[in-house]
Amino acid sequence: MQSDNDQAVTRLFVVESLKAQKTLRASASQAHYLRHVLRVQDGSPIALFNGTDGEWLAKVETTGRVNCSFLLKQRRCPQAEERGPWLLFAPIKQLRLDYLVQKAVELGVEQIQPVRTRRTIVREINVVRLNANAVEAAEQCGRLTVPKICAYTDIADVVDGWQTGRMLVWGDETGRGEPALHTFRKCDRDVAFLIGPEGGFEDSERTLLRGKQFARAIDLGPRVLRSDTAVIMALALWQGVLNDRSPT
Amino acid sequence: MQSDNDQAVTRLFVVESLKAQKTLRASASQAHYLRHVLRVQDGSPIALFNGTDGEWLAKVETTGRVNCSFLLKQRRCPQAEERGPWLLFAPIKQLRLDYLVQKAVELGVEQIQPVRTRRTIVREINVVRLNANAVEAAEQCGRLTVPKICAYTDIADVVDGWQTGRMLVWGDETGRGEPALHTFRKCDRDVAFLIGPEGGFEDSERTLLRGKQFARAIDLGPRVLRSDTAVIMALALWQGVLNDRSPT
Repeated sequence: MQSDNDQAVTRLFVVESLKAQKTLRASASQAHYLRHVLRVQDGSPIALFNGTDGEWLAKVETTGRVNCSFLLKQRRCPQAEERGPWLLFAPIKQLRLDYLVQKAVELGVEQIQPVRTRRTIVREINVVRLNANAVEAAEQCGRLTVPKICAYTDIADVVDGWQTGRMLVWGDETGRGEPALHTFRKCDRDVAFLIGPEGGFEDSERTLLRGKQFARAIDLGPRVLRSDTAVIMALALWQGVLNDRSPT
Repeated sequence: MQSDNDQAVTRLFVVESLKAQKTLRASASQAHYLRHVLRVQDGSPIALFNGTDGEWLAKVETTGRVNCSFLLKQRRCPQAEERGPWLLFAPIKQLRLDYLVQKAVELGVEQIQPVRTRRTIVREINVVRLNANAVEAAEQCGRLTVPKICAYTDIADVVDGWQTGRMLVWGDETGRGEPALHTFRKCDRDVAFLIGPEGGFEDSERTLLRGKQFARAIDLGPRVLRSDTAVIMALALWQGVLNDRSPT
């Protein structure tokens, strides 16, 4: 759903600082993408963002057969704060995980925290790939920031070490939570969502969560949702509540 | 998020009618799945549903090296009406389409209608694959019905031929729609969602929709959503509104 009124310029995330007249060298994968997938011409416009300096218009400069650099022209829009929910979830298989991260970025998450539960089957996750996916989704959806990806951590460490003032809203697949929208309407803007693994949380994990003042159980409806569906549903509902709050 | 209290029995959709003591022959793909993926033993329990006779417990009977049949025992739960939203959408590439259909089924759609718009890139769709995906998702998420998959149709034919009393709620990527939740709260239970292609609707299509009394434009938020994200977001919000309406 690309909007008609956006100038359709490819957006790329870079790590360098951005200022007028600066030249940046594209990474090998960016150069490949621009030259061999998009087949951009020397001098084509491109938009760059780095999470802190806003979005900049630049000019693509191609050199040799494979390289590519960007000559920065002017700032296209200023950096905006992009607050959003934190997402804590039990990882799933790689392909569905890629998709999940993409959707989470589009739905505005600020931080992604993979959580190890007793029934999580995935033992290791590829954080580099997770991050690359988050970058690509941020480029595509017009965000000015890329969510922070945290290290894979045990649920007990996450919950017992909860230092933030954020409410931790978790999907209770036993149906004993409050309907999600009901809870969301009472939540402060800063919220974190925790969605369990395909096999559900274990009783001990639910007990751990129920014992915390900052944790709130929600119910996501009558059907058995895959965990990635539950994540997307929670984030979509939350985004819907936020849209509803902002003046139209 | 499999619930603990469900007896974790594999569910399969069949087309035959279901009654006690009847024996059904598994399809080749069901037999392969049971014998070579799940490695079920002769006599294992299984649950069957066909969209009209409720859900039945059966016993798997293995014969020879590859075949499989089901001996029906008793009805496990009666057939329930599963009303839900209709989904109309401009198809996307196959892998993301598979995922989209799966999510749509989990989020309760009753009917899936692929719609051809001016900017839809996908010219043909594999309805058999679409249906297989819908069946698999229905089996997994505990539904008693599989959504109807309609033929790929031009948007003008769909909109001009709109015969149902359903409200047609469409995602307006120009931001001129009402916030989704706002609209949803006013909607009757019977609703249809229309989400456009990656490039957005063309002006003529928006004009067509705006001219219809039964159509209502919604806004799904500030970011540029991929069309599959927009579909999931609309369905998740709708499901959230329905959950919120039902007594807790």
